[in-house]
Amino acid sequence: MINLTFPDGAVRSFEAGTTSLDVAKSISEGLARKVISSLVNNEVWDVSRPLTTDATIQFLTWESDVAKNTFWHSSAHLMAEAVEALYPGVKFWVGPALDKGFYYDMDLGDRKITEEDVAAIEKKMTELAKQNNPFIRKEISKKDAVNYFFEKNDEYKLDLLHNLEDGNITFYSQGAFTDLCRGPHIPNTGIIKAIKITNVAGAYWKGDEKNKQLTRLYGISFPSQKELDEYLALLEEAKKRDHRKLAKDLSLYIFDDDTGSGLPLWMPNGTVIIEELEKLAKETETEAGYKRVVTPHIAKETMYQTSGHLPYYADSMFPPMEVDGEKYYLKAMNCPHHHKIFDAEPRSYRELPLRIAEYGTCYRYEQSGELFGLMRVRMLHMNDGHIYCSKEQFFDEFKAVNELYLKYFKIFGIDKFVMRLSLHSPEKLGKKYVNEPELWLETEEMVRKVLIETGTPFIEVQDEAAFYGPKIDVQIYSVIGREFTLATNQVDFNSGLKFKLSFTNQNNEAEVPLIIHRAPLGTHERFIGFLLEHYAGKFPVWLSPLQVKILPISDKFMEYATAVESQLKKAGVRVEIDSRSEKIGKKIREAELGRVPYMLVVGEKDVAADTVSVRRQGVGDTGAIPVQQFIDQITIEIKERKSE
Amino acid sequence: MINLTFPDGAVRSFEAGTTSLDVAKSISEGLARKVISSLVNNEVWDVSRPLTTDATIQFLTWESDVAKNTFWHSSAHLMAEAVEALYPGVKFWVGPALDKGFYYDMDLGDRKITEEDVAAIEKKMTELAKQNNPFIRKEISKKDAVNYFFEKNDEYKLDLLHNLEDGNITFYSQGAFTDLCRGPHIPNTGIIKAIKITNVAGAYWKGDEKNKQLTRLYGISFPSQKELDEYLALLEEAKKRDHRKLAKDLSLYIFDDDTGSGLPLWMPNGTVIIEELEKLAKETETEAGYKRVVTPHIAKETMYQTSGHLPYYADSMFPPMEVDGEKYYLKAMNCPHHHKIFDAEPRSYRELPLRIAEYGTCYRYEQSGELFGLMRVRMLHMNDGHIYCSKEQFFDEFKAVNELYLKYFKIFGIDKFVMRLSLHSPEKLGKKYVNEPELWLETEEMVRKVLIETGTPFIEVQDEAAFYGPKIDVQIYSVIGREFTLATNQVDFNSGLKFKLSFTNQNNEAEVPLIIHRAPLGTHERFIGFLLEHYAGKFPVWLSPLQVKILPISDKFMEYATAVESQLKKAGVRVEIDSRSEKIGKKIREAELGRVPYMLVVGEKDVAADTVSVRRQGVGDTGAIPVQQFIDQITIEIKERKSE
Repeated sequence: MINLTFPDGAVRSFEAGTTSLDVAKSISEGLARKVISSLVNNEVWDVSRPLTTDATIQFLTWESDVAKNTFWHSSAHLMAEAVEALYPGVKFWVGPALDKGFYYDMDLGDRKITEEDVAAIEKKMTELAKQNNPFIRKEISKKDAVNYFFEKNDEYKLDLLHNLEDGNITFYSQGAFTDLCRGPHIPNTGIIKAIKITNVAGAYWKGDEKNKQLTRLYGISFPSQKELDEYLALLEEAKKRDHRKLAKDLSLYIFDDDTGSGLPLWMPNGTVIIEELEKLAKETETEAGYKRVVTPHIAKETMYQTSGHLPYYADSMFPPMEVDGEKYYLKAMNCPHHHKIFDAEPRSYRELPLRIAEYGTCYRYEQSGELFGLMRVRMLHMNDGHIYCSKEQFFDEFKAVNELYLKYFKIFGIDKFVMRLSLHSPEKLGKKYVNEPELWLETEEMVRKVLIETGTPFIEVQDEAAFYGPKIDVQIYSVIGREFTLATNQVDFNSGLKFKLSFTNQNNEAEVPLIIHRAPLGTHERFIGFLLEHYAGKFPVWLSPLQVKILPISDKFMEYATAVESQLKKAGVRVEIDSRSEKIGKKIREAELGRVPYMLVVGEKDVAADTVSVRRQGVGDTGAIPVQQFIDQITIEIKERKSE
Repeated sequence: MINLTFPDGAVRSFEAGTTSLDVAKSISEGLARKVISSLVNNEVWDVSRPLTTDATIQFLTWESDVAKNTFWHSSAHLMAEAVEALYPGVKFWVGPALDKGFYYDMDLGDRKITEEDVAAIEKKMTELAKQNNPFIRKEISKKDAVNYFFEKNDEYKLDLLHNLEDGNITFYSQGAFTDLCRGPHIPNTGIIKAIKITNVAGAYWKGDEKNKQLTRLYGISFPSQKELDEYLALLEEAKKRDHRKLAKDLSLYIFDDDTGSGLPLWMPNGTVIIEELEKLAKETETEAGYKRVVTPHIAKETMYQTSGHLPYYADSMFPPMEVDGEKYYLKAMNCPHHHKIFDAEPRSYRELPLRIAEYGTCYRYEQSGELFGLMRVRMLHMNDGHIYCSKEQFFDEFKAVNELYLKYFKIFGIDKFVMRLSLHSPEKLGKKYVNEPELWLETEEMVRKVLIETGTPFIEVQDEAAFYGPKIDVQIYSVIGREFTLATNQVDFNSGLKFKLSFTNQNNEAEVPLIIHRAPLGTHERFIGFLLEHYAGKFPVWLSPLQVKILPISDKFMEYATAVESQLKKAGVRVEIDSRSEKIGKKIREAELGRVPYMLVVGEKDVAADTVSVRRQGVGDTGAIPVQQFIDQITIEIKERKSE
């Protein structure tokens, strides 16, 4: 008999050799139907794998990200089974799960996968899934494994076997398909109820363009058709909200070959959004007691040696320039420059907390293949800031930073968000983490307390902190539910030492400040990318590049239109007249397409009554009101940064 | 007989061999006493040099910069004569005139020049000047010249002789001193009435640190003691207003070794000034119809090949970075990026003039020895902007730009300024200048007309235009009369072609736009440097980092002080409380030193009457007024950007 300990602490005895699935069945048939994998002593296991010793056990169902990963990994095997059935002789390389879905790289010889092939593979996968074949795990000696793939003439799997150690090799089979695989897998193919091949692409073997190009099939699968339908609808919606397309429609930014990849040039419309965001940040930060600074975009090698970014972070930085025999780097982060500003004058406890902020533009090297619209760029306008404080001040400061985030979420209508709190791991102190056991516990507890007190949703993750302190990754969700990592918020008790920063405390002693790194609005690039999707390009009035378009019904009303325009301009509203001699219907259509929040149609009656006929984008005509009334309404809407 | 033509066109006949001085005497004795040199056929001549052919002639007196240059060059010879008299065996290298004054590099063997030496040299110079020795010019063969300095064992002058051609060599002598010199010189030493040795420094021979270090004596001289006194007083005042010292007192910026030379880090106080200047620029430019953009700080080599900056301007740029096998440069100017923004979309005449503006940060490589505070830096925050317009629009656009300058001059109390209009030279069309003869004349005439119509003081300079069009250097003078070049304002009819820019004109044809480059506030660095001197660090309230300091007479009044502070903050005023338990006298003294424009002393009476006792920096107590009244006054002063 073996003893199994459940998450609630309960311990029950089972026959040795029993499986997780058996255990699940002993609890309820419902659970057994839902279970995808199990955590045995914190390791993910097949539910069909025999339990032979005492262990802790936990069941993973579709709701868990780990189980989804297993589900999609098994789906990749199912896809391979279908492909092999349809195209005998195909050879497989690797087929992992992704954040969403899975892929498998394969050598199909000269065959190009057509749309018909895709349909056939999907059909075959569905057919095989219905056979409800179990995934069977088999431990195998390296010799037997090599023989198997040698017989199969499969140079790809033989290549993989080179790096595996005897005693550590497993095969997984389902139906007629067998693969070299570490697992784990779902109990059987039957729980894969809905399947879609989403993309066919080329992929060089081992990612090296000198190697042969393999075919990569991407797919997604779900335990129900409904979930697949929802997912595909979301994809469709996300496509409509694709920030690259919207930004082009709205003339927000361009990329240019002579400027370089991943370096957006912000057009006037995009710059309006940038400036409104900066204005918001500056107002908010001034109110919160921040002081602003401006620092160069470059620094010498010695700066990044002190900070520790060199040599470890060098790959993510632009290469150096040689000036006067010394190496200069484009800055990839603003903190070192800010530390220098802290250090510029002797500091007393009276000046602390010292909060400094800068919209600092950083440059980071990303592989050109990784660049993606505004989401992965090489230039980052960062809403950066650093708080230098004593330990006693830390709690209040961190709380204030958290409140900044919440304030911004409200302004932008971000209803769903989660803070991912990364903690240290005590056994790695002095190695992966600064050896300050008490400071770790103390600051982690303070951060946790802030999150709890402010009702901020968060999850804790062990052993993922920064070297120098706990960190929070801020994850936000757009209205269509897609997740974005907005910013990282870090506690730092190490840089103060590295840069020899200190202040004179109340006891007249030199003390090293704690540092909080924060960037609540992330970067302009990523945040505007997010907002484009979030608002589907229909920015709230305060953020809209153009806020009002005046549409005279005919040229006769240009004079009146111009008078209204100048009143609006005087009130600080961004306004334009569509002065073309076009039909009013066309003018309205184009302004609607241009996502201008307010259209003011002006004609005979408006001139007579000193009114404007207001049309709200996406809503339609809302009637005629006096000009001044419209100005009062819109200026309040702008000033209060209303979302709707 | 020869015929001499005077500047007014008059022609008079003289004996061949007559001198300019003779001619001057023939006009008036007064003129003869004042004349320093003459322009003969537009070449600067000694007034004692015989005129042997027909020529144009013009007299130069102290008012002319060219004459000052001659005066100071002759003073350098006088200094050499004095030094040789005092320290026989001294050898001389070169001794040119400077913008202000002169220097001479000399090899004094082991002698170090002491303060006593300086006094002795000044005394000797005065004595020699009084001898009223004429400067005598002598044409000499190379052979005789070499012999002379060989006998004198003077390796320095022999070195100079290497590069001179026979038939082109002249000696100048005054008193006992003879020098190899191209001239020209003043008629005699007697007109040098006031002399001061201003500095003693080391200078490597030929500027090469591997060579011997020579002694460089700097001096200044004037035709009257009064002028020297005024000059020294100005120097003294300029020293008090030294922007580097003031900036340090006011914590505006720092330089840092790890960041690099010439790269200021702007502290919170400096950043306030930067942000106020940007706010002013943005407001003004928005009103003037500019659209703002934001562009990267780097671009690829191809960008600067297209613009023509590479390879010709490469020495002034930072060296390239190699990314993905391509060279990237830090931008030294914003125009290419702006051209790309013009080019991002098809443009119609309806969109022109397109005015785009950016506070773009550029990086320029300056020799480390050339770096000087904020005046010569390697990072430049430029108030940049480019106007793309048709030829028909040019006049109005250029006029509007000129009005921007005048508007700013008024705001900053810059009463003295001059625009230096640089024109092309017709014979260099197609070589030094774009071969567009009509466009040159047309745009030059339009620029001239703008300057005349707006009553802007300007001077015209031939043959100093940019390659692609006429340019204006804007020179401004601080209140103590020192000159600063603020910005360059250029007309450009070439970059449009280079970047293949075009718009569809009213005839539906593609047309290349004219481009105006403008930067009315120059760079933050140079302009703030100028303002520091101009205001002697006492910024007007709207620009002051701290606008109000509240000084409670004792701790008892902290509560009231805090209430006043929060009212002021709410009104957008930058305010602080001096909360230290110090005597009020000390608090006032320190706030005065910190150049805080308003100090509000609060005590018993103020609490009772809800008033503040206002003290204006540099002025003193101006009496108690109700808090609200003070707020009303200061907010108007800030809003209107009052200078006083």
